[in-house]
Parts: sequence; C-alpha cells; structure tokens
Amino acid sequence: MRAGKAPPSPALLIDLPKDGPGPLQTRLFEALRRAILEGRLAAEKPLPSTRALAEQLSISRNTVVAVYELLTSEGYIAGRQGSGSYVLPTIPDRFLAAPQSHTESGKKQVTRRKSRLAAELMSNAVASGKHVLFDPALAALEAFPIDLWSRLVAKHSRRLSRNALGYASPHGLLSLREAVAEYLRLARGVRCDPDQIFVVSGSQQGLNLVCAALLDPGAAVAVEDPGYPGARAAFRMARTHMTPVPVDDEGLNIAALQRAKHCQLAYVTPSHQYPLGVTMSLDRRLQLLDWAAKKHSWIVEDDYDSEYRYHARPLSSLQGLDRSDSVLFLGTFSKVLFPALRIGYLVVPKNLVPVMLRVREALDIFPSSLNQAALAEFITEGHFARHVRRMRVLYAQRQKWLLHSLERYASGWLEPGETGSGLHLAAFLKAGIKDTDVFYLAAERGINAKPLSQCYLGKKKRQGLILGFGGGDRASIFAAAEKLGKVIREVAKSEKTD
Amino acid sequence: MRAGKAPPSPALLIDLPKDGPGPLQTRLFEALRRAILEGRLAAEKPLPSTRALAEQLSISRNTVVAVYELLTSEGYIAGRQGSGSYVLPTIPDRFLAAPQSHTESGKKQVTRRKSRLAAELMSNAVASGKHVLFDPALAALEAFPIDLWSRLVAKHSRRLSRNALGYASPHGLLSLREAVAEYLRLARGVRCDPDQIFVVSGSQQGLNLVCAALLDPGAAVAVEDPGYPGARAAFRMARTHMTPVPVDDEGLNIAALQRAKHCQLAYVTPSHQYPLGVTMSLDRRLQLLDWAAKKHSWIVEDDYDSEYRYHARPLSSLQGLDRSDSVLFLGTFSKVLFPALRIGYLVVPKNLVPVMLRVREALDIFPSSLNQAALAEFITEGHFARHVRRMRVLYAQRQKWLLHSLERYASGWLEPGETGSGLHLAAFLKAGIKDTDVFYLAAERGINAKPLSQCYLGKKKRQGLILGFGGGDRASIFAAAEKLGKVIREVAKSEKTD
Repeated sequence: MRAGKAPPSPALLIDLPKDGPGPLQTRLFEALRRAILEGRLAAEKPLPSTRALAEQLSISRNTVVAVYELLTSEGYIAGRQGSGSYVLPTIPDRFLAAPQSHTESGKKQVTRRKSRLAAELMSNAVASGKHVLFDPALAALEAFPIDLWSRLVAKHSRRLSRNALGYASPHGLLSLREAVAEYLRLARGVRCDPDQIFVVSGSQQGLNLVCAALLDPGAAVAVEDPGYPGARAAFRMARTHMTPVPVDDEGLNIAALQRAKHCQLAYVTPSHQYPLGVTMSLDRRLQLLDWAAKKHSWIVEDDYDSEYRYHARPLSSLQGLDRSDSVLFLGTFSKVLFPALRIGYLVVPKNLVPVMLRVREALDIFPSSLNQAALAEFITEGHFARHVRRMRVLYAQRQKWLLHSLERYASGWLEPGETGSGLHLAAFLKAGIKDTDVFYLAAERGINAKPLSQCYLGKKKRQGLILGFGGGDRASIFAAAEKLGKVIREVAKSEKTD
Repeated sequence: MRAGKAPPSPALLIDLPKDGPGPLQTRLFEALRRAILEGRLAAEKPLPSTRALAEQLSISRNTVVAVYELLTSEGYIAGRQGSGSYVLPTIPDRFLAAPQSHTESGKKQVTRRKSRLAAELMSNAVASGKHVLFDPALAALEAFPIDLWSRLVAKHSRRLSRNALGYASPHGLLSLREAVAEYLRLARGVRCDPDQIFVVSGSQQGLNLVCAALLDPGAAVAVEDPGYPGARAAFRMARTHMTPVPVDDEGLNIAALQRAKHCQLAYVTPSHQYPLGVTMSLDRRLQLLDWAAKKHSWIVEDDYDSEYRYHARPLSSLQGLDRSDSVLFLGTFSKVLFPALRIGYLVVPKNLVPVMLRVREALDIFPSSLNQAALAEFITEGHFARHVRRMRVLYAQRQKWLLHSLERYASGWLEPGETGSGLHLAAFLKAGIKDTDVFYLAAERGINAKPLSQCYLGKKKRQGLILGFGGGDRASIFAAAEKLGKVIREVAKSEKTD
C-alpha cells in the first residue's frame, strides 16, 4: 500500500456470492480463504472488525464472528483481544500451490513447516478456547475434591525443604513414580519398575519426548485413521512421515498396517480409540505386538482416559502383554483429575531408560516437584481410587443423558458409535450432511461439536461429530442436544437446495 | 556368550599399562573407552562392579568410581543404583569410525543421533548429579525465603478455584506475565507487552520452543565458542547445524560472524557470557543487531543470570535496543530464585506471537498455574526485588572468597577471568596443563570443576576451569580451593613426566 492512498475496503476484496449454494457462513469462509490465498487480503494486514464486515456485507455479525474463529483455528488469521484480527504470514501449506519464500519483501517469515503445524493444531485451539458443550476436553471439574487437594498442596508447600528447591532428577519424584507404578500394575496390568516411569507435564510432552528420543526426521510412523490431532502435531513437529492406518470395530486394522511401508513406530489408543471410541480386541492386540516384535518397531500406547469404562473391566494394556520390550505406555492425570495439574507419565522399556533420561533433560531438565508430592499422597492415601469410582458413576450417567437427548432431538440424523468408555463419543451423520458445515453453524450458536472428518489423514473420511459429555449436567446436555438437532436439520435443508 | 561358558573377566579385556604416561584415572578411562569402542566390552552387558574391577586391577576403588562416572557422563555406559553399570548400545558417534546399524542382532537400537545428544549432555548430567563445589548450577538456596514462599503457595492453593483446574492459555498466567513485563522493563530495559511473554518451564524449554517455531532441520545457527552446553543440546536435538563463533573480551566476535556462512539465528549470552563471563560491549551489541536486521536473522538473547552484577549497572538488553524485531529474550527464575520452581519466560517479537502460541501448545499445551500465581504475588509484593538485592551482596562476598582462596592456593597455576557478574567464573590453567585431567582427578576428590575446553566446538580450545561460587560458604570455598590447588600441581607433575 502506498502512502497517501487509503486501502480498499476489504468487503470489495471478497467475492461473496449473495445467493450461492450452501450455508452463508461456509460461503463467507471460502470467500475469505480465497482472498487470503490469492493475496487480495495481504499478510500481516489487519482484517476489518467483525462488526464492520457484517455491516459492509449486510449479514449477521454472529456469522462473521464464527467464520473468523474458524479461520483462526485453521491457521489463516490470528487475533488478539482488543487489537483485531490480521492475516498470518504463514498459510497452511497444504492449501498452497507454490512453496513460500523464507524472506519475502524483507520480512522475516517463519518457515512453511510451522504453518503446517498451525493448521494441524486446529482442534486443540478450538478446545482450549471455549468451555462449552460438547467439547471433549471438558471434565466434571465441579466434582473434583478441590478442598482436599488444596489442603494437600498447602501441607506439602509448608514442608518444602531446602533440598527440594534444587535441581532434581529428570525422572520425576520417586514417591510419585512408586505410586503410579503400583496403580498401573493393579488397574492396567502394566508391568514396570518406578525407574521405567518418567513424570512429564502431560501426554503431549510425553509424545514429544518419545519423538526426540526414538525418531529421526523422515522416520515412518503409523497413526490411527481417524486419529488424535495432538499426537499428529507432535509427529509433524518431529518431521516424521505419517502413514494413516484405518480403524474398524476391533481397533487398528493390522492387515493394513502390515501392507503399509515399514513403520518404525505405531501410535495407538487401544483402550478407547480417539475419536471413534472403539476398544482394540485382544486378538488385534496380540497381532500388533507380534508385528512390533518381528519388525523391531515401537508401539506408543496412549491410555488417555481408560479409567472410565462403563460396561466391563478394562482390557489389559498392550504394555502388560508385551514380551519384546516394544511398548511405550503414555498416561495423563489431565482427564482423571484436572488439566491444570500438568502431570502425566511415560513408561518405557528398561533398555530405553538411559537415553530417555538424557532426552528428558534436554527437553526441560526435570518436572516441578511440589504438585508431584501432593499427587503421590493423593494416590497412596486412596483419594485417587475413590475419585475414579465416583466419577465413573457420574460420567456413565452423563453419557446416558447424552444418548437419551440425541435419541430425542437427533434421531435419524445422528447415530452414536461406541459408548463403552471415556468422556466422549463419536456420532455419525446421516448420509449427505457435511460435518464441517454442522460444526460451523453449531459454533455460531455456542456449541463445540468437532467434525469427525477433520480427524482423518487418508482420503476416506466419515462424516460425524465428536461429542464430549464430561463437562455438562443434565439440563445443559439436553439443551445443547436440542440446539444441535436443529442445526443438523438446517444444514441438511440448505445442502439439499444446493 | 554361549551357554555353559563363563564370560571372560572384564579385567582381562582391558589393556591397562601399569606404568603408562599420565594419571592413572586417565589411562583407565582410555583403556575402558577403547575396550567399548572395539567391542571387547559388549553393548548391554554388565560391567564389573567398581569394587571388583579395583580388586582385579589392584588400584583404588575411588579411581574406578571416578572413571565410571566420566564414562557415564560421556554416554559410554549407564548405571542404575543397585543394579550396576552396563555398556550403552549407543556410543557417542563422534568417536565411531563406521556408521552404526539401526537393528543390530535383532535388537532395537536408538538411532545414532541420540548418542550424539547423550555425549552433548555431559556437563548437565554431571551438574545435576553432584551437589559439591564448584558446580556452577548451585545457588545459595539456604538464603531463599522458604517460609514466605511456602505461605504464598499455601495461600494460593487454598484459593484454587474450579476455573483454575481446567485448560488454560499456552501463554501462561496473565498476572505473572504482567509482573514479568514490568520487572523486565525496569531491570533490563526490555520493551514488551505481557502478550509477548510466554511462560515456560525454564530456559531449556524456551530454547526448544524457539527451535520448534523458527528452525527447520539443517538450519544454520551461530553459537558462541566457548558456549553453553544446554543450548547446544537443544540446537542439536532440533537437527540444526551449529557454527561456532569465537568470543573475545568484548563478547561475540561480530567480524567472525559476518565472515561465517549465513546463519538464520545467533544464540548469545551478552549479559554474562557462558562460560567466560565477559559482558558484550555496547558497540558489539549494536553491530550484532545490525547484522540481524540486514540478514533477516534472529537473535536469541539468553539472560540467564544477569540479576547478579557486582561492579556496575547491567547494560541494557539487546531486546531493548532492537529496532527490527529480531530479538527473542530468554530468562529463568532457576538461578535467581530456585531451580525446582521450573518457571522461565520467553519474550518474542509481536509478529511471532500467534505462531509461538501454537507451537507452545504442541510442546506441552500450557504451564501449570499454581506456582505461577504464587510467583506473580512474590514479584508484585516486592519480595523478588528484595531477594535479588540481598543475594547480590551475598554472591559478591562469595566471589571474593573464591578469588582470595585461588590467590592463596593456586596462584600462578590458575588465572581468574572476568568477575563482573553471575554465579560462576572461568579461570585459565597454566600452559601445558590439561583441564580434563584436572577435572577427573578433582572429581575423585569430591570437587566439580568443569573443564573449559569441553565448552568449545571449534578447534581452538583454552584450558581452564568453570568455578561456581553460588553454593558455598567461606569455609567450604577455601577448603575446595586448597584441594583444587593440590590437584592442579599433581596433574602438572604427572604431565611433566610423560
């Protein structure tokens, strides 16, 4: 833009067909996306405010807000409170035709790799931004024994010794590792010494630790398809190549895994597949272990919410069945206690302990000890087991409410999948309805129903919604389901008129 | 090894000349290293206990213990308490002639890259293992107001709200970012909004965040030579190529930087160069900023212990002088408060905020909030500033004791370098004395005097010792200096007889 010339009105730069096909918000999203990709909306320039654009286009401001949020979550634009939104210099490069220059017009640019990462992180960004149903990241925090926890933390903080102030082992606190080893042995059939356990700040750091220790850039990694976006972000950040392997009713399709190019590592969620919710059968577990033993590959078993199983005892972990030291077992207290605790654990085969110690140190030296001490006591004094038992009843009830409300408001439109465990379920949309359209319109109305299709890497994508029920009471679940049912019907109607 | 055959005694596998040149521990180290590299001591096989080997070789057990520790810290062997030491399957590959197979004899092997990392981490491993003088990682933890801190943590834990249990921003707690922004503005001339600050678990995570956000594998990075091993570990883990740039009395040699291959990023410690202790001159600061602006490169300014300056006010930070949004400023509370706090901060240019948010999330979602709240109050209530003032007096005194004791016990053998700031100083050995030999022998006698030569990447290495004075009182500093003086004389004597 030259001095003395006012910039053209952004509305003029956007080619929004007034009566085009599909819902308005989808068309606006596409129009803005095109304007950004084709450079009509330039990088690092401010976008009009949602109010201004709504006025210029004579449409509802809510529509513009929803579209801006989606553009943000997909990595096209960014916004800070109070200072408006602007176009990011890095565009998700899966949409880019030509490679992007590193130093364009004298401006430092982050490299293209980061923009891929940004796009990848869509679902997490959405998850952390909104505390509304049906965000699967929400748990029943109101049922957490917060007073008890506070007393424990206060007690341990008063007991803080001088020794506890200094550098500690990258392993994490021994008392916590002992408590976790005992819990995992009883509850999950995991067989390990406390020395094989590394305390991490959550599953995400655990995954990054695994990547840094075991995978070189370019390494081939098998991931479930559909699968967990957070894991994909870690594998992408490590510059590995992901091979999507389909999931069916028994879990990962091992035949497909065997047909695929050799992979150094397979990432699986056998207890409660994310997002489909299926449990890997015992037969598949044994086949997967056999594959790993024969191919000298690793398995990462992400056991993110196995504590909540409603119909039967959880199956034994892959780690407990492993006879070839192939399994790295990943768990977190974010789901079962609370996310802000920032404590998870990684259990590794004995021969990896020395390497993991060093890589853990290179990542961030060692974990903070105060919360670890409180957590160790929380577990050893039996509070943890009591809390899990109480929550299992509560979440089973919430899942029932969700199923009843979907039956009442979305029967015939939305078919729930597996319901045996966890804090969310996947539900499949009636043929012909696009889940992203439902997601956009629902988001406008304050509902976070993540589109299932976004969890696929491969070409074959099922259309559905990921519905978390951990964070809602009866009334809010029914109200959200009613809204969602209306949204789906509206989307179906507008898609028919296409 | 075949069934029915006892393994040969390890002592027989080691070729230790009884009266060879150099100190015994150096010869034993070399003999064991050769036995490992040549495969006489096989990977994953147990080593003899220190007691057994000492008896077999008729030498002191202390010598064997010191050599095992060094082999551990250099990544040749690993040991766990109680279960003995064994040879690691991954050997630091700078010592290997031929590339190592990934899957050797059907065993999974971690890749060669990790072994490089292991070797790289030598100094950190040593640092965290021993709480003895002159470990530069030690601080005067006995002077930290632990009761006040405990009260603050207890108070905030009692006030824990339900909202504080859930997912939070990858940015970190706003109240802490505001407190840090204000402190940095006053104390370091850093100009930033709280939005530009990311709370991290320490400098190490901050560096990994920078690498993940800005550098692709293969990117060229300029590092100070000699320089900080922790930073090198992060750059190595990110698979970047490091270009060592010499440091002189004014800090980084900018002429050398300009002659070097173009680097996307320069990592510097301008307030108190690690390990030499020099402060970068204002002229050099301006030249470095000019280089970054012209080359569109980034500067990481690691300000790890600038709080402790004894003779003059600290120079303004590079960040405060920067006019081209090139500087990322890294700080930590590990040195100035206590390491177990696990809180540091990264200040980034405004245009990097959106990308950093996402990469921070992909690293480990967000930092735990409890300690952040206590720390924010610790700063805003003035406890932090008071603590820094008290500690500055204390550390100045400790540095004087160290200088006096070196003068008394090592005059002519050890020449202290810069003493203007920080918690350690570098001291140069009399010509002809190898600092690694001093390190080994001193370690045997319970002194941790890191060899300066190990901080160099380039061929030109100065021989000296890195002496931390933060963790000792008068008596322990004088006692350690006396021992060190003797050690140096012994090494000099044995080297003369070579």
